[in-house]
Amino acid sequence: MISPIALLTDFGQEDIYVAAMKAVILARLPSISIIDLTHNIAPGDILHGAFEIWRIRPYLPQGTTLVGVVDPGVGTQRKPIAINFPGLCCVGPDNGLFSFLLETEPEHIAVELNRSEFWGAQVSSTFHGRDIFAPVAAQLAGGISLDEVGDEFSSPFRLPRSRLEVTPYKAITGEILHIDHFGNLISSIGCLNYTGGGLQFSSWLGDQEPFEFKQEQVRIQLSDAKPLMLMESFGAAASGQPLAYIGSAGLLEVAVNGGHAAQIFNASRGDPITLTF
Amino acid sequence: MISPIALLTDFGQEDIYVAAMKAVILARLPSISIIDLTHNIAPGDILHGAFEIWRIRPYLPQGTTLVGVVDPGVGTQRKPIAINFPGLCCVGPDNGLFSFLLETEPEHIAVELNRSEFWGAQVSSTFHGRDIFAPVAAQLAGGISLDEVGDEFSSPFRLPRSRLEVTPYKAITGEILHIDHFGNLISSIGCLNYTGGGLQFSSWLGDQEPFEFKQEQVRIQLSDAKPLMLMESFGAAASGQPLAYIGSAGLLEVAVNGGHAAQIFNASRGDPITLTF
Amino acid sequence: MISPIALLTDFGQEDIYVAAMKAVILARLPSISIIDLTHNIAPGDILHGAFEIWRIRPYLPQGTTLVGVVDPGVGTQRKPIAINFPGLCCVGPDNGLFSFLLETEPEHIAVELNRSEFWGAQVSSTFHGRDIFAPVAAQLAGGISLDEVGDEFSSPFRLPRSRLEVTPYKAITGEILHIDHFGNLISSIGCLNYTGGGLQFSSWLGDQEPFEFKQEQVRIQLSDAKPLMLMESFGAAASGQPLAYIGSAGLLEVAVNGGHAAQIFNASRGDPITLTF
Repeated sequence: MISPIALLTDFGQEDIYVAAMKAVILARLPSISIIDLTHNIAPGDILHGAFEIWRIRPYLPQGTTLVGVVDPGVGTQRKPIAINFPGLCCVGPDNGLFSFLLETEPEHIAVELNRSEFWGAQVSSTFHGRDIFAPVAAQLAGGISLDEVGDEFSSPFRLPRSRLEVTPYKAITGEILHIDHFGNLISSIGCLNYTGGGLQFSSWLGDQEPFEFKQEQVRIQLSDAKPLMLMESFGAAASGQPLAYIGSAGLLEVAVNGGHAAQIFNASRGDPITLTF
Repeated sequence: MISPIALLTDFGQEDIYVAAMKAVILARLPSISIIDLTHNIAPGDILHGAFEIWRIRPYLPQGTTLVGVVDPGVGTQRKPIAINFPGLCCVGPDNGLFSFLLETEPEHIAVELNRSEFWGAQVSSTFHGRDIFAPVAAQLAGGISLDEVGDEFSSPFRLPRSRLEVTPYKAITGEILHIDHFGNLISSIGCLNYTGGGLQFSSWLGDQEPFEFKQEQVRIQLSDAKPLMLMESFGAAASGQPLAYIGSAGLLEVAVNGGHAAQIFNASRGDPITLTF
Repeated sequence: MISPIALLTDFGQEDIYVAAMKAVILARLPSISIIDLTHNIAPGDILHGAFEIWRIRPYLPQGTTLVGVVDPGVGTQRKPIAINFPGLCCVGPDNGLFSFLLETEPEHIAVELNRSEFWGAQVSSTFHGRDIFAPVAAQLAGGISLDEVGDEFSSPFRLPRSRLEVTPYKAITGEILHIDHFGNLISSIGCLNYTGGGLQFSSWLGDQEPFEFKQEQVRIQLSDAKPLMLMESFGAAASGQPLAYIGSAGLLEVAVNGGHAAQIFNASRGDPITLTF
């Protein structure tokens, strides 16, 4: 049984670009399972792609090969790369798309895909997803080892770190990282976990000492809106009312029960958010 | 050979929420086929979800496990449930999402998913699709029996019945239940079948005696628009002209040949529609 | 190992129409791989469907069965057909959807699907994708031969040929065939290939003698915009600047680095474009 291949792109769904990658993969591995992570990353939005790859990471089956193609620099000097993490191999451009994994999983090996014998027969200048990443990923998923497809290199490109600042005994400040399909605002504040009677904070970016604090006095300040209380889930707020809660990735989120928080708060990615305790 | 798992959600396609459910399923059942029913149910639109589940039902392969997640009440007291119908097991929230099947298929057994040993290792308050429904569905698809995953309960929640009134020897009145991708208006009037020389009506909700009537005098009245004739298919109307027809689910529909009926008629879900004969 | 089935429709993703076809296929072939080419062809846009089928063709695994359903004439006299090309079987309506393959691959055999024993148990007037094309495709993919499912006929319907005119030693004139998800303009001028020091033109429609020309003096004229230079890839133009390039299908394309060319040029399908050399 071969582990699945997961695909994330900014190709949208009007064209056959995603299908071309799948066709290339299935021509080599006819019975492999392919998981579409999402293909609706906004064109060139590497940060969103990187965040989604981080969010899905804990749930990917052991041995998954993930192909990520948000690649505005295709055909330029940016490297095509593959990175082995424990139980996960990522294939794509060296432009920051795997940043959050690189930050949070120091145990990894990166290679530059510089062995063209593993690429497609013809390589276009504008579609490396089809011509380099998909064929290499299929071969890696099929059992070829990382050191065969390219030479190791250090320091794959990383995006700037997300904002996440702790004021001891007082507050955690972050930013809105993503607005999801429901209009929920997902922040960089986390990971948070309920413990007996309190909350534990342990930085998802791995750069802070974990600590605990009590829940009663927690307030969440989003830009200049009225402070919000931390609640369990959407239904704990009255219909149409806002709430803050620990989202399904362990990050602090803000929603409106039955509404679209981003529109109601006129919020944007990058907006500051603070949790005081 | 394991039967497929079918997924229906309101998660959209910008995030990795659907993929997280698939990843959880494939980690347990690496070679299972997953059918995406749709993930574009409007957020929280349980009625649309329920209707789509009813529409796809006759075509699902024997033994399908269907996971439906339109779940605005996630994390509240609404039960997580599974329901066995003949040859189909449905898993999701007890909020009416399986209403149309419950109405039309009295032979079913429902359990509340209250055995957490079948859930994911950690259960968030806002994503039971990933943490409860997907793992339980994978185990049910893999052969675990319904009575292992929870305790039987009666009377799963149902939405109010759709409007479907018969005036004997004269008319059938219903409502617009769904507007599809093409702008076609799908009504609650049905099921209708052509017989030799006439039409047979047998309520899709199972609550009326079947009867037949002649086709010649049939007229369809949508709100206050001009009455429409019943035609075979789109091409029977001139380009740009409206028509009524028996749709692919056996329900009366209204379309405009080459046009978008919902826009042209300014129609909405819930609008009344009457077939006179 | 059964080869995959590829699906292309204009059904969108809000309804269960695509899923109904997949369910019908999986009920017959539980372990087959299904590739979604795209389901976002604009309703009734046969030309776009035909173009996408041509674009994906070289990448489809050997033995693929492709079901194409852009079918505004469903339920009228237009024939349901299947066409065998080398290593590919296409199933769908006889309305031009396979035009570009018919143009470019003279070696093919077409049959009219007139053996209802291979169709679904009930056939609606408005959904032949589910009731005729999917069941026939599943049986063809499963090993039934083309001559069993229908009678051979000649001259499947073709759309008018795309514009592609050569002025010897001077210019090639075509039209914008497609605007993709990124707003890139894909023209009918091609196929073009870089050779040592120059470019080779060999008509993708197979109706011109191939010839070569030098690259230095190449200019691309899109409607009345400023002439563009031919570049390697997006990143060769400054951010926000337009460029022409040979796209991943071998056709001349126009893009704006980091921008949406169709909006910036106010371009539409059918707009003229000329390459002078």
